[in-house]
Amino acid sequence: MRPDLARFAINQITTPNWTMAQAIEGYAAQGVGGIACWRSYLDEYGVERTARHLRDAGLWVASLCTSAWLNAATEADFDAAIEQNRRILDNAAAIGAPCVVMVVGGLPPGSKDIAGQRARVRDALHTLAPHARSVGVKLGLEPLHPMYAGDRSVLNSITVANDLCDELGDAAGLVPDVYHCWWDPAFESELRRAGPERILTFHYCDWLVPTRNLRDRGMVGDGVADIARIRGWLDEIGYSGVFELEIFSELDWWTRPGDETVRIGIERCTPYVGALGDTAKDQA
Amino acid sequence: MRPDLARFAINQITTPNWTMAQAIEGYAAQGVGGIACWRSYLDEYGVERTARHLRDAGLWVASLCTSAWLNAATEADFDAAIEQNRRILDNAAAIGAPCVVMVVGGLPPGSKDIAGQRARVRDALHTLAPHARSVGVKLGLEPLHPMYAGDRSVLNSITVANDLCDELGDAAGLVPDVYHCWWDPAFESELRRAGPERILTFHYCDWLVPTRNLRDRGMVGDGVADIARIRGWLDEIGYSGVFELEIFSELDWWTRPGDETVRIGIERCTPYVGALGDTAKDQA
Repeated sequence: MRPDLARFAINQITTPNWTMAQAIEGYAAQGVGGIACWRSYLDEYGVERTARHLRDAGLWVASLCTSAWLNAATEADFDAAIEQNRRILDNAAAIGAPCVVMVVGGLPPGSKDIAGQRARVRDALHTLAPHARSVGVKLGLEPLHPMYAGDRSVLNSITVANDLCDELGDAAGLVPDVYHCWWDPAFESELRRAGPERILTFHYCDWLVPTRNLRDRGMVGDGVADIARIRGWLDEIGYSGVFELEIFSELDWWTRPGDETVRIGIERCTPYVGALGDTAKDQA
Repeated sequence: MRPDLARFAINQITTPNWTMAQAIEGYAAQGVGGIACWRSYLDEYGVERTARHLRDAGLWVASLCTSAWLNAATEADFDAAIEQNRRILDNAAAIGAPCVVMVVGGLPPGSKDIAGQRARVRDALHTLAPHARSVGVKLGLEPLHPMYAGDRSVLNSITVANDLCDELGDAAGLVPDVYHCWWDPAFESELRRAGPERILTFHYCDWLVPTRNLRDRGMVGDGVADIARIRGWLDEIGYSGVFELEIFSELDWWTRPGDETVRIGIERCTPYVGALGDTAKDQA
């Protein structure tokens, strides 16, 4: 039986050696429903050309990755980053992406003030919210694993991300990721608190034991995250959105041909990306 | 002026190439007040010989590191690990260590059930509590960084550690560590919740940017953790206990001569390990 991939997307960073055109063709060829696009590939291929190619290939867009970092050392550079993020939101709208994944940057150069930088990021999100609303693209708050707090994002907790969503209303939502959140004792309760509408897309991947470096994310099934249980929580809260494969893997998956990564990714994700779990309940 | 090192200890893993005897002599020679001992060195040198050497050198003991892991796959092996931890508590008492640092292990082999393993660890701590009380040694709960949840410890949050301390009463306390907790938005509030008596020893180190692997802990001052601010919190809550330097550093500090690491460690820690902050308040 052909797998049900209507809710399944692949994040383009999973096949980093492919251009935008190759990723669109490569995913569509194997029946994947959607794609999460990255800015560097989008800029290279062009926004309009990407939008047209996506339509022609019949792929929907899960998100645009990622925001510009908000950890500038000066106020002028900070304002420039805000403006850059407005343009990124525009581009997301142009390709039909429902959200921009907010990876907000680590500490500003020379700073040790993580609480201060978190407050600054919060202000930035409030500043960006009106523009996000005006173009119909949500700020996708992705809590990154605490091991990235220094250099990639000071947003490291799904609890804090939910708090921010409470403040930002319909301008924002969550982008939970198995790799970043699997360890968190509050992961389940915060997904329940979020509810189905707030979850914009859901990242699948795995945590390897041992983990060899800070870019050693595992393919679904190769690690210790309990994907079946997590999918169960999402069904229980009525989540009907996207399941997205995203793998950063310097030592393994990034070295393989894209076709192989996509084929194995589909095999591994198929049990966890099918139709709504509550279909079964409706029939019961 | 000679630095005030009365509250300062070095954790023996910081100078892993030294034997127990070399560490005792090496720390005492430079005026360090205390030592945190590791089991492998203790077993090699002998418990009685270590206790005598510590007395002769005038060093106090901050802790014994670490507990035996509690992630056995079978109940028989789990029971054996409990019994082994009782003997480790006995050894801690014999060398005058006020606590055993509980590094509880990651997931059992083949398991993806982190919530189940956390429940099992909780049960184990309750099982160990009476023996801990009877020998006068506390269970030192050290929340480990979430990046170690798979393979070293499923206890990854100071909030959960405080919850466990609430349950375990005077059988347990906290061993907070800058490297493990610096990123946590709840670090300050959970230290305030703990209060001074519950903190058994406090680990200094730093988070490097970039962090190159999972054993790349920084020397105090080389990273992005705000040690001065953290020391300020501890003074505000009235903490009068130990400050302990602990560095895991495969690529740097572990390759250096022990004397050099101790000398630089003292230089870097001196601003943060002096007499009680509230001495100043008493005089004000």
